[in-house]
Amino acid sequence: MIVSALLTSVGINFGLCVLFFTLYSVLRKQPSNYDVYIPRLVADGESQKRSSFNLERLLPTPGWVRSAWLPSEDELLASSGLDAVVFMRIIIFSLKVFCFAGIIGIFILLPVNFTGNQLQNVDFANLTNDSLDVFSISNVENGSKRLWIHFSAVYIFTIFVCYLLYSEYKYVSLKRVAYFYSSEPQPHQFTILIRSIPVSAGASISDSVDSFFTEYHPSTYISHMVICRTDKLRNIINYMKKLYSRLIHLRGEPPRTKCDCCGCCGLFRRKIKIDLANHYEKKLEDLEENLRLEQSEVSLAGQEVRAAFVSFKSRYGAASAFHIQQSINPTQWVTEQAPEPRDVYWPFFSSTFMGRWISKLLVIIASIALTALFLLPVLFVQGLTNLDQLEIWFPFLESILTMTFISQVITGYFPSLILHLFLKVVPPIMKFFSSIQGYISNSDIEKSACNKVVWFTIWNVFFGNVLSGSVLDELSIWLEPKNIPGKLAVTVPAQASFFIAYVVTSGWTSASSELVRMIPLIFSLIRKPCISSEDEFEVPSLPYHRDIPRLLFFGLLGITYFFLAPLILPFLLIYFCVGYIIYRNQFINVYAPTYETAGKFWPIVHNSTIFSLLLMHAIALGIFTVKKLPMASTSIVPLPILTLLFNAYCRKRFLPMFIAYSAETLIKKDREDRDDATMAEFFDKMATAYQDPALLPVQYSINSDSLSSPLLSSPEIEG
Amino acid sequence: MIVSALLTSVGINFGLCVLFFTLYSVLRKQPSNYDVYIPRLVADGESQKRSSFNLERLLPTPGWVRSAWLPSEDELLASSGLDAVVFMRIIIFSLKVFCFAGIIGIFILLPVNFTGNQLQNVDFANLTNDSLDVFSISNVENGSKRLWIHFSAVYIFTIFVCYLLYSEYKYVSLKRVAYFYSSEPQPHQFTILIRSIPVSAGASISDSVDSFFTEYHPSTYISHMVICRTDKLRNIINYMKKLYSRLIHLRGEPPRTKCDCCGCCGLFRRKIKIDLANHYEKKLEDLEENLRLEQSEVSLAGQEVRAAFVSFKSRYGAASAFHIQQSINPTQWVTEQAPEPRDVYWPFFSSTFMGRWISKLLVIIASIALTALFLLPVLFVQGLTNLDQLEIWFPFLESILTMTFISQVITGYFPSLILHLFLKVVPPIMKFFSSIQGYISNSDIEKSACNKVVWFTIWNVFFGNVLSGSVLDELSIWLEPKNIPGKLAVTVPAQASFFIAYVVTSGWTSASSELVRMIPLIFSLIRKPCISSEDEFEVPSLPYHRDIPRLLFFGLLGITYFFLAPLILPFLLIYFCVGYIIYRNQFINVYAPTYETAGKFWPIVHNSTIFSLLLMHAIALGIFTVKKLPMASTSIVPLPILTLLFNAYCRKRFLPMFIAYSAETLIKKDREDRDDATMAEFFDKMATAYQDPALLPVQYSINSDSLSSPLLSSPEIEG
Repeated sequence: MIVSALLTSVGINFGLCVLFFTLYSVLRKQPSNYDVYIPRLVADGESQKRSSFNLERLLPTPGWVRSAWLPSEDELLASSGLDAVVFMRIIIFSLKVFCFAGIIGIFILLPVNFTGNQLQNVDFANLTNDSLDVFSISNVENGSKRLWIHFSAVYIFTIFVCYLLYSEYKYVSLKRVAYFYSSEPQPHQFTILIRSIPVSAGASISDSVDSFFTEYHPSTYISHMVICRTDKLRNIINYMKKLYSRLIHLRGEPPRTKCDCCGCCGLFRRKIKIDLANHYEKKLEDLEENLRLEQSEVSLAGQEVRAAFVSFKSRYGAASAFHIQQSINPTQWVTEQAPEPRDVYWPFFSSTFMGRWISKLLVIIASIALTALFLLPVLFVQGLTNLDQLEIWFPFLESILTMTFISQVITGYFPSLILHLFLKVVPPIMKFFSSIQGYISNSDIEKSACNKVVWFTIWNVFFGNVLSGSVLDELSIWLEPKNIPGKLAVTVPAQASFFIAYVVTSGWTSASSELVRMIPLIFSLIRKPCISSEDEFEVPSLPYHRDIPRLLFFGLLGITYFFLAPLILPFLLIYFCVGYIIYRNQFINVYAPTYETAGKFWPIVHNSTIFSLLLMHAIALGIFTVKKLPMASTSIVPLPILTLLFNAYCRKRFLPMFIAYSAETLIKKDREDRDDATMAEFFDKMATAYQDPALLPVQYSINSDSLSSPLLSSPEIEG
Repeated sequence: MIVSALLTSVGINFGLCVLFFTLYSVLRKQPSNYDVYIPRLVADGESQKRSSFNLERLLPTPGWVRSAWLPSEDELLASSGLDAVVFMRIIIFSLKVFCFAGIIGIFILLPVNFTGNQLQNVDFANLTNDSLDVFSISNVENGSKRLWIHFSAVYIFTIFVCYLLYSEYKYVSLKRVAYFYSSEPQPHQFTILIRSIPVSAGASISDSVDSFFTEYHPSTYISHMVICRTDKLRNIINYMKKLYSRLIHLRGEPPRTKCDCCGCCGLFRRKIKIDLANHYEKKLEDLEENLRLEQSEVSLAGQEVRAAFVSFKSRYGAASAFHIQQSINPTQWVTEQAPEPRDVYWPFFSSTFMGRWISKLLVIIASIALTALFLLPVLFVQGLTNLDQLEIWFPFLESILTMTFISQVITGYFPSLILHLFLKVVPPIMKFFSSIQGYISNSDIEKSACNKVVWFTIWNVFFGNVLSGSVLDELSIWLEPKNIPGKLAVTVPAQASFFIAYVVTSGWTSASSELVRMIPLIFSLIRKPCISSEDEFEVPSLPYHRDIPRLLFFGLLGITYFFLAPLILPFLLIYFCVGYIIYRNQFINVYAPTYETAGKFWPIVHNSTIFSLLLMHAIALGIFTVKKLPMASTSIVPLPILTLLFNAYCRKRFLPMFIAYSAETLIKKDREDRDDATMAEFFDKMATAYQDPALLPVQYSINSDSLSSPLLSSPEIEG
């Protein structure tokens, strides 16, 4: 790619960003869009619908940037939980890393690269027609002593990143402990999940659990809640909800109908509506009867799953039961930490040890298959960046493709946009895979999906682009690990301009379209006319498994290209700066937490960064060999080893804190509660906290008085 | 190697074995050798010194075979502990495996191989001059349909071995639980080891431990014992022991002296002895004074290590503290299960988290270095099996080497004997490495050394011989994993005759020399004249880290060569049969357990067998490719995958039972003790069970009355 193509791409995307920002600052002020742009405030009832029209509403203003900037981390913690804080720490961490890298890269490495003459003498007069490669390490002469500058940069950068990783891990882990100390007593702190409960003939699962825990944990055991298979009930309830919302719509619309003008037509429609409403009411009543019957059957008819939530008197009691293998047979009475009640993923079904094991295996195979098959569209996209290829495939396009602007759009913008769209469907698929893996909580599912998406992205976007440019059978490279550095050294720098464009197109656009929330906006515009405002309104939550991998992938690009093509760094810095403001804004206004893992996403960030460093070292090893500086490539070898040792140390030093709380913490916290009078009440509530919402009584039918607020108890209220 | 060379080797070794057996059956009946051949009975006082001479004492009798055969497994368990039973299970397991393999191999595969004609037409008349290769898979024609017989054999054998592995793992794990249930209360069940104790300024380590556990485990904590650095004390005590034994020798010899005949000479020597004895007495007194001073100083002068044994009221209490991370910082208050008091390795020194981590790293590097450097002698040995090579190196030997017998000895016997001698020094070195790795107990050290020796043997003896025959830089093969099966398929069958000879020479000889205990016998013969019989007499223990790897390595040879060269199987079966009788005999008569891991060695056996199976699959994959049967080599691929899955399942199903006991087990056992009146006494004893023996009062000097039985308290008595 030449400089002017990059400039075109930057221009388009800068324009798009400005457009999005302007659009956002206008749209967010329209009361009709409040449920898209400030759903949190709407839900809290903080947004007084200021319907008074004034001119200011139509002018783009940057006030939201200020209000997104202002809140402190503690305020963010209070409003959006520790997971949001950890998410913002990823951006802050990246900003720190790339500020440092940017200073070294732009002021030291870039001039060194630029003044080299391996490729060609730079034509200062006509800079825009130069290849971007003159800014990369490829332009430094082979065997040049100046490569030692790059060598030193790699060492210094690695040390700096490791130092930051250490201090961030420490910071997040301390935050985690502080969060636990400051938390109210919560049911999941006192509860564990038991799976693979063995049942002797004649006894029920509930009896089995009760006798086991009264036998072995008499002093701490309180109660338990056996889990049932409630897919059928959930289906009925969902159908009832739909009917109810239609009913409300039919009944509620007349006073607010907008076409009251045409009388007879209105009367006729009114008649139909009343008939329909009566029909729905009848149906709802039937369904309710049906549901009650089914609910009473579930517990009778052996629909119980061999799993139960078991609650204890103290956090330490629960932790003892969780940490110590309960049964002689390790595949029975398998313990797990309980998630928050609101976080439970009720449709989970596989509870036997073998069942979960097999489904886990199948999911792993499916994920690998998806990752491998996904390469096909990537290869196609890769073909598009190559104009010559395109002309061969579609000869009739030749005349269009020779136009400078079109060709620049196609090479600079089009390919990464398509890739970006393809990638959009991956996180939901991976989440689906994780959900059938047998996790009990939404947070575990998202964490697992996050991991899957990270590796998917690295494999498909990074290696897919880097390797498919030269070999189709990229898998074969991993079978000859000796050749990896050499291979990467040739192919990675060649894709530098593609990834610079990728940061600009995919990165900048994704951040600013996150701000505008295009899809929810369109959805809301379509839905508005046909749904009443009393209809249930859900505050969205940030899909961490979609956004964390994206941030981590840009981190990987920055780390690997830092010494190869430092030109990528300013674009990345802009991305992270914009991301910082936008995500803060979204946390404050849009996304509400639906669970709290208390920072359990951080180890993923740490591991991914370590992998990026190792990848950089492998590339450096190859580059210095290719560039005929064997001394440097030998001297780089200790670096990955030291990095791995550093990682091993961090795993021992910090990772256990992200898996479970220590005895010290738990006992201190238990003591605090000892004199608390409200604990008795809390324990009473806890007994039903893990009740499956599908088993709670539901009242939608018209006979009840509370039509506008159906008696739909949901565990959120109790949790 | 040709058939006659093998027969020579078998002949020599069979002769050696018969010689050893005859020797043993005579030598063991001589009262002077009782401390070599029946030290256990001597220690128990069961061996009445039948000095009455009779002819039967000089005749070889097979009575010992019968008495080694008779005891049941329970009797062995009672006399030698579960570790001995597990050791015997390894042999029984191998016998089962190779009986099955032998039937398939000898009656199905061997005829198939022999009737092939890939190599040459077999000369029935002159069978002894045929190469052994006619019995191996190499003799089957390329692309022959008969290779499917080998293919099926690999599948059936793998399934059979996995079934046996499963049932043995289950058997051993149940034995382990049963052993725990039937055991007396023992201090290590109630105790944990704490390392990396943080100390606040001014407070002692003991205070720190006390305040932490009374704070967080008030209901279960009893007492603790801080560990001190006692290297200096141990040196003094050892020196005192030596002096004392000399003193006893000087004082005790006169009545039993044999050269009383020459009067004046005797008088003169007597004078010198009395002077010497007085000198020693004086010195001993000084040392004792010194020791007392040092002992009192140790606890004062900050010689305490930041580690302590902490005891609890119940087994479950100790397990809770062990399983749950104690401190917020996972690198402080690191918990570990306590070993038996007699099993503690007192000279352990590194107690800080970082210290242990670094020493572990260094040991790993050292072990790898040893494994790599050891190849040099192996390569030399390998050269010896090649007569042509030898003639080139030492031309003057040519005349000798042409003699049939000499050449057969050299090719069939000499190489593996040298290798065998070299390998003798490896287990002690590996044990030394493990001991500086920071383990607290001898059993852990031996377990870790056992693992190291297993991998060392596999790498050096198997791969060293297999790969060095063709490539010197064998390490490079691992950098191209794709080529491994192909490489192995070519090189492994080529070494079949070497390994058959290895089984015969190294295996048979090692087993029968184990019986005769050549080195202890020689040592005892040398030592006898100069040491008094009152001198302390130690019953040896079986060095598991030496003998388990040997058994496992023969298992690996059998599994990998089972379908390549089934001729190896009868020799292996003989080895294991002989081993069964010999080791039983040794457990009954010679070796006493010095610790009890309750079967923790079994997972090593399981892992090593799984590795052997995978290696066999890799070789099969390569062989079928080389033999031009691509269908078969594709169809073999699921087998290693299924084996790995089986292994993963076993890890989940059984391995946790070998790491710690379950809550169910611990609580049941605790309840049994609840009404036991002797428990109070037990807890009193437990408080001092983990006292460092170097800190106990020692009295050797002459002033005391108990000269012949010094007041040397050792923890064995208390444990």
